[in-house]
Amino acid sequence: MRQEVKKVIVEICQKAKVASAQLAKASAEQRNKALCSMADCLERSCAQILEANKTDVEAARAKGVKEALIDRLILDKKRVNSMADNLREVAELPDAVGEIVKTWTRPNGLIIGLLRVPLGVIGIIYESRPNVTSEASGVCIKSGNAIILRGGSDAINSNMAIGNSLREALEQSGLNKDIIQVVPVTERSYAEKLMTMREYIDVLIPRGGANLIKTVVEKSTVPVIETGTGNCHIYVEGDADLTRAIDIVINAKCQRPGVCNAAEKLLVHQSVAKQFLPKVVSALNLNGVEVRACEKTMQLLPNLKPAVEEDWGTEYLDLIIAIKIVENIDEAIAHINKYGTNHSESILTADFNKALQFINEVDSAAVYWNASTRFTDGNQFGLGAEIGISTQKLHARGPMSIQQLTTTKFFILGRGHIRQ
Amino acid sequence: MRQEVKKVIVEICQKAKVASAQLAKASAEQRNKALCSMADCLERSCAQILEANKTDVEAARAKGVKEALIDRLILDKKRVNSMADNLREVAELPDAVGEIVKTWTRPNGLIIGLLRVPLGVIGIIYESRPNVTSEASGVCIKSGNAIILRGGSDAINSNMAIGNSLREALEQSGLNKDIIQVVPVTERSYAEKLMTMREYIDVLIPRGGANLIKTVVEKSTVPVIETGTGNCHIYVEGDADLTRAIDIVINAKCQRPGVCNAAEKLLVHQSVAKQFLPKVVSALNLNGVEVRACEKTMQLLPNLKPAVEEDWGTEYLDLIIAIKIVENIDEAIAHINKYGTNHSESILTADFNKALQFINEVDSAAVYWNASTRFTDGNQFGLGAEIGISTQKLHARGPMSIQQLTTTKFFILGRGHIRQ
Repeated sequence: MRQEVKKVIVEICQKAKVASAQLAKASAEQRNKALCSMADCLERSCAQILEANKTDVEAARAKGVKEALIDRLILDKKRVNSMADNLREVAELPDAVGEIVKTWTRPNGLIIGLLRVPLGVIGIIYESRPNVTSEASGVCIKSGNAIILRGGSDAINSNMAIGNSLREALEQSGLNKDIIQVVPVTERSYAEKLMTMREYIDVLIPRGGANLIKTVVEKSTVPVIETGTGNCHIYVEGDADLTRAIDIVINAKCQRPGVCNAAEKLLVHQSVAKQFLPKVVSALNLNGVEVRACEKTMQLLPNLKPAVEEDWGTEYLDLIIAIKIVENIDEAIAHINKYGTNHSESILTADFNKALQFINEVDSAAVYWNASTRFTDGNQFGLGAEIGISTQKLHARGPMSIQQLTTTKFFILGRGHIRQ
Repeated sequence: MRQEVKKVIVEICQKAKVASAQLAKASAEQRNKALCSMADCLERSCAQILEANKTDVEAARAKGVKEALIDRLILDKKRVNSMADNLREVAELPDAVGEIVKTWTRPNGLIIGLLRVPLGVIGIIYESRPNVTSEASGVCIKSGNAIILRGGSDAINSNMAIGNSLREALEQSGLNKDIIQVVPVTERSYAEKLMTMREYIDVLIPRGGANLIKTVVEKSTVPVIETGTGNCHIYVEGDADLTRAIDIVINAKCQRPGVCNAAEKLLVHQSVAKQFLPKVVSALNLNGVEVRACEKTMQLLPNLKPAVEEDWGTEYLDLIIAIKIVENIDEAIAHINKYGTNHSESILTADFNKALQFINEVDSAAVYWNASTRFTDGNQFGLGAEIGISTQKLHARGPMSIQQLTTTKFFILGRGHIRQ
């Protein structure tokens, strides 16, 4: 059994490595054409994809999977078309590969340059949403990388159908179909083997819940980019525009509560707590949000549910928010750096110095002044499609788009130079 | 016991995290002053450092450690002065922290920027050379990072003495002395605990032999940057200037054979093998180099020692080279990508197209055209002091200097912006 797992995974990895070397030689034009042909092929194979998806959805329902998760799993013609449109949009994005980032000449005449190149092979380990199969493939091919996809068991038939359609398109475009490979077995041992393939895989990106990410971080010897957990904070200073503050809090909490850049915590300066909290709590309640409150907030609004220690570190991904009154900006920053997940935080204030302190001292990928945290997103930042939002500091931080899936190499041009 | 290990390591990590937050607020002037005061303090405590080093050297001799390793371990007044000078040079380098890399405005008026900031806490796990204690500390403080140093047991007394001197200087400069911490116990369990401190340490950089690096890569949950293993190749094309080629091969192999950018393999196009190999082998022999040869080379020069399969993957770090005759550039590139360590490789050719193919297709951090591989080094590239040479693709590739020890964060300035 263990031998079989190893054989399957090593074979996938070896094929991916060969395919990535071939893709690295393809021109931007070839890559963009392949993306468009992948889009066409997805639309052409819509019936097969929906058929496979139906099998997954029925199996999930039979297993008693929650409807919220079924909704993430389910595909229809509109969703397949939107996957295809996403690939066409990626084809339109500017290219990153092959850029000469800079060159300089050393005193001895040696010319040194930095060339942007693909990473090579990217592994994605993800949960139920089958559209990730096509979106991640698109961004990887745009940036010249081969991709190995290991999706969740609930979506295996959908993922295989989408993968087969994309591979067919690659072949028709004259590229190696192994640029995209879906691991056909979802048993855990296969994913774990994949995490040890450092010789073949250049980076592993987990996309999904906190547990999935934790497992990959702990078990992988392949470099991992941690993504997506967002326990995001909004801090309202004493001099904030309180009317705007309510709009921002409601937007950050309610516009799409199930995503990583939604606000989960509200910190309020003690000087405006009495004035601001009743208003914001009533607006939150009107929007169906459950409010959990710190002790000081409970004194002002005794009907709220008290927050417990665990609340401060929790990403609810739901219509729930916890509120804490703080003495000053230092306490707010310390609280965020202690309990946050280094994703997105916002300060609402009129004071430049306070905004600057917050931007400098809050240790997160995206730090806002007077805006909703909901903008942390590749498209909203103007970077184009993204493969995830990195919450670690190495390699890429924040939304990862085409450029973040590349690396550089030094090239050195001499005329017989030797070191003295 | 295990509780004790955990307590010691967690305490060091917590102190480092606090110190790094304080250092992040220090100005470039304060950091540079601290570096100069560290240099002065090292020179002032020279006697204590040499005394501690003597203990280490005696213990190593008693244990029967090889003289080559003793030479790496041993300090004298000149070496201590050179450590101090290195710190003064680092102080003179341009600053990286606080740079606004770029800003742009979105159609909705949101201003987005990218700010360069320190990584936070850097862990270094290294072997016998005690000067790493001071060099790594210098580069980390320059880039605004706290550092945790875990050196080898052979150098523990030297490392502690150097660390104490540097910490004293930090305190005198008004900075937190915990910016630099040397793990006082060299037992393996302490290093292994350090490798799990993902909550506190932002990156772990192993510096040393292949085994050390492999262990850290396999055991660490903290992001690792793999450094330093260099099985470097020189490929001589059919149209290369063969006189220059001999100079380059001799320089790359012999100028300093024990370092990672020294050439370990020579690949020669079959069309010039007969003409070139006797000359280069005789020059290598004159320089005391043992030559190991592929089968085809053995046919030309039957007195050489035959190379075995293992040779192609070995970093000798010694006056040994293995030679292989290849049919063409494609075979050369495939061989390098199969057996190399993605460090530094050079093609010697007059042909621009071949050079371009080599630069594009060889998957290494530094790819040379008509020059010795010995230039892969932060100072030689004009980047300043380095903390190691990354052979992986994530975050940093090639020599890592000040900028590679930083990350960026997005800052987003709004006027009450909410997402539509």
